[in-house]
Amino acid sequence: MRHIDLNCDLGESFGAYRIGRDEEILPYVTSANIACGFHAGDPGVMRRTVRLALDSGTAIGAHPGLPDLAGFGRRNMAISPEEAYDLTVYQIGALNAFVRSEGGKMRHVKPHGALYNMAAQHAELADAIARAVLNVDPGLILFGLSGSELVRAGQAAGLRTASEVFADRTYQPDGSLTPRSRPDALIVNHAEAIAQVIRMIAEGRVRTTVGEDLAIDADTVCIHGDGPHATEFARQIRSACEMAGIILSPAK
Amino acid sequence: MRHIDLNCDLGESFGAYRIGRDEEILPYVTSANIACGFHAGDPGVMRRTVRLALDSGTAIGAHPGLPDLAGFGRRNMAISPEEAYDLTVYQIGALNAFVRSEGGKMRHVKPHGALYNMAAQHAELADAIARAVLNVDPGLILFGLSGSELVRAGQAAGLRTASEVFADRTYQPDGSLTPRSRPDALIVNHAEAIAQVIRMIAEGRVRTTVGEDLAIDADTVCIHGDGPHATEFARQIRSACEMAGIILSPAK
Amino acid sequence: MRHIDLNCDLGESFGAYRIGRDEEILPYVTSANIACGFHAGDPGVMRRTVRLALDSGTAIGAHPGLPDLAGFGRRNMAISPEEAYDLTVYQIGALNAFVRSEGGKMRHVKPHGALYNMAAQHAELADAIARAVLNVDPGLILFGLSGSELVRAGQAAGLRTASEVFADRTYQPDGSLTPRSRPDALIVNHAEAIAQVIRMIAEGRVRTTVGEDLAIDADTVCIHGDGPHATEFARQIRSACEMAGIILSPAK
Amino acid sequence: MRHIDLNCDLGESFGAYRIGRDEEILPYVTSANIACGFHAGDPGVMRRTVRLALDSGTAIGAHPGLPDLAGFGRRNMAISPEEAYDLTVYQIGALNAFVRSEGGKMRHVKPHGALYNMAAQHAELADAIARAVLNVDPGLILFGLSGSELVRAGQAAGLRTASEVFADRTYQPDGSLTPRSRPDALIVNHAEAIAQVIRMIAEGRVRTTVGEDLAIDADTVCIHGDGPHATEFARQIRSACEMAGIILSPAK
Repeated sequence: MRHIDLNCDLGESFGAYRIGRDEEILPYVTSANIACGFHAGDPGVMRRTVRLALDSGTAIGAHPGLPDLAGFGRRNMAISPEEAYDLTVYQIGALNAFVRSEGGKMRHVKPHGALYNMAAQHAELADAIARAVLNVDPGLILFGLSGSELVRAGQAAGLRTASEVFADRTYQPDGSLTPRSRPDALIVNHAEAIAQVIRMIAEGRVRTTVGEDLAIDADTVCIHGDGPHATEFARQIRSACEMAGIILSPAK
Repeated sequence: MRHIDLNCDLGESFGAYRIGRDEEILPYVTSANIACGFHAGDPGVMRRTVRLALDSGTAIGAHPGLPDLAGFGRRNMAISPEEAYDLTVYQIGALNAFVRSEGGKMRHVKPHGALYNMAAQHAELADAIARAVLNVDPGLILFGLSGSELVRAGQAAGLRTASEVFADRTYQPDGSLTPRSRPDALIVNHAEAIAQVIRMIAEGRVRTTVGEDLAIDADTVCIHGDGPHATEFARQIRSACEMAGIILSPAK
Repeated sequence: MRHIDLNCDLGESFGAYRIGRDEEILPYVTSANIACGFHAGDPGVMRRTVRLALDSGTAIGAHPGLPDLAGFGRRNMAISPEEAYDLTVYQIGALNAFVRSEGGKMRHVKPHGALYNMAAQHAELADAIARAVLNVDPGLILFGLSGSELVRAGQAAGLRTASEVFADRTYQPDGSLTPRSRPDALIVNHAEAIAQVIRMIAEGRVRTTVGEDLAIDADTVCIHGDGPHATEFARQIRSACEMAGIILSPAK
Repeated sequence: MRHIDLNCDLGESFGAYRIGRDEEILPYVTSANIACGFHAGDPGVMRRTVRLALDSGTAIGAHPGLPDLAGFGRRNMAISPEEAYDLTVYQIGALNAFVRSEGGKMRHVKPHGALYNMAAQHAELADAIARAVLNVDPGLILFGLSGSELVRAGQAAGLRTASEVFADRTYQPDGSLTPRSRPDALIVNHAEAIAQVIRMIAEGRVRTTVGEDLAIDADTVCIHGDGPHATEFARQIRSACEMAGIILSPAK
């Protein structure tokens, strides 16, 4: 029996600013990646989001990002592996204090935005992040782009890893995501996106932009938490998984 | 046999900016209060300071402050008790991740600057901070100004507390520190400062600004980490304690 | 013929975060107070908001706030008059560069939130802010709460000032706003709020919370830019002013 | 008669943090690049540094940097040209308000650190920065690395430019600085460094790392403001310039 995890970035509000529809999307996902105050989130938002996730029985993970609130952590920064290590330890720790004080247990870590992308490609950054996760808690699961340096680094460090796939992004022949700057980066048709994700889970294969099949690991699917159609799309993915006999559960 | 703890604020550098002489003062103190990135400190500084403290066998505590790097956490801010709770949980957690990943164990929490002063006077803030400490780890010791609301709140919450005294500050008849704006706030003569602190430890009494004796609890003495005479003053206090048969050890 | 200015806080988005409906409210106001990056706003938001205001012919003012993005500049901070001076100069200058580079001319300055409130009550802060405005450009108009220290300080410095009144807030016998913590702080009935503001403009009087009339200067009315009913309320105020023969124009 | 400008980065302290020996180095330089609060500096530091520079008769320029205080603006960030434009306008404006309110006039703009380096290589960023300077004040002089995209962009925009050279850095055959990661990046011998800079000014030529001469424009020399030997090195450069009949004066 196939299992799949649906994960979503949550807790990205900050102070008076609200982003996302956390309460709406939570019932549809099995893992919540909660922002830790660097690219988004603040201590109060973190506590309330942890509480929400615990109340809905969703697995909780830290979602560390670059120290770039103005850029929402989406702008690459030339940080050193040591800096990547330090900011990962810091942010996991900060979130973990809320998880523990609210009576829960953190299960995973998924880097955010530019940190995620840089760690997918750069082995030294990936190793630093994996080492940070390991040193804080070797029981944590490291989420990374399927086929990326980050997943490799996590496995090399002895961590459990979850390979992440995207329903609505196309894949290039080398297994990387097509850059958003390219016109064929996104799969805008919901049915096609869902078909792609189901095939990745059920068959472990994806059709690339050049029309050939590629083997791909799919442990967890990234669900976007904002946008007007977010919950509808999440609902459709869940429904398609259930029809395909795929069991939804947090990554293990 | 009397015991006393000597504590010092450490890890207050930030990025390219250096403050304090952490390596020099560490051998003279028994507890290190390490800044957590809000009023001072950054993830790299935190890791290196934790490492230094562990290597010197000094007890480690979190030193959470207000989110005011520009003001070094010294400017009162009208935060709510809930905000105080949240920023305390966050900062304890962030530091704790470094302590654990470096193989140590956090022992105490001492709020910084304006947060310390506000928590000394305002019961609701004090209660929020005590609750934050309790919820993250009930084994932590809460440091607060001797006789303050913070110590009361910690005790009421069931935490162990350490009452802090100052060698070089004068005390008012109600047990509060004379405000720095007053000319008689500081004891500039080293010998007098040392005599005051030894008497507080050995006799549990201090002579106030109006010339009368006041009972005072003294579990830990604040040692300043910067300034040209910091280590010399710390050395003198240690020496005076040893001559008075007072054992130096981390607060229990 | 009576004149009145309607002012609104704008440009309070930050990075990926959106607050306010600037395009919707702009046609209804005569002065735009644009956030300057401390409590809200960022360089890109500032440029775009300046452009919007210029395109709609709305007078532009700087809206400097406390360095507290997490608290949206609403939490009092114990800053010194010198710090108030410096952060006011800085923020006026930053916004002014956008106004000039977009081909406009800044007309006024209105402090935000806690800075506004503190400057209403504390003469030294008010004098520092007035001096900052004067030293950057003596032609700027300083907006402050009607009857406040800030208006007094502006006049004493030789600046033109605009006394601000609130349609939906009640006034205490001393002319100050009833604190929001009190149940009678807000006038929730739109018709009553509009009646109050028209009377303040036309008669220079307001009925206080104890039921007596008080003389009040009304040069500009604060219009809230967010909330679902913001534009509707602004439209009603404009309409009532026009019916009362009050001319809407930027403060002079 | 040859002229040369000696410029130095100043005003890089922040809050309680001190960097640099501004008072010591100021008498030796003809242009002061003052940090604007993004990578370093704060409003109070800016005002005091402007005052110092005006009192010493040194020409004043804005020194805008990336929004990365933790990295001192030295870490490349993937900002867009539009973001570069906006943060340059913002920072020039903020500093200009202090220059004007202290009775001076800003003369130049020199980007800092990673922003300077990125603008040296990337034409779009360089054009955006040049446009920002032009739109705020077309009379400002843009400082950039000699031979860089930034100098080209400034000239293309119709700005006056100053080509900057380094005494203690070696040059590669294409005119770029040898990266600091290479062992031959720095000229550690003071006499050699001074000989290089005099030759660049007097002859317009520099010997590259492959031993061949390269034509180079030298309008201004970067003088480092910190380090124990900063003032001594600055004094030696001045002295060598005077002996070579080179007149020291702000860039024109």
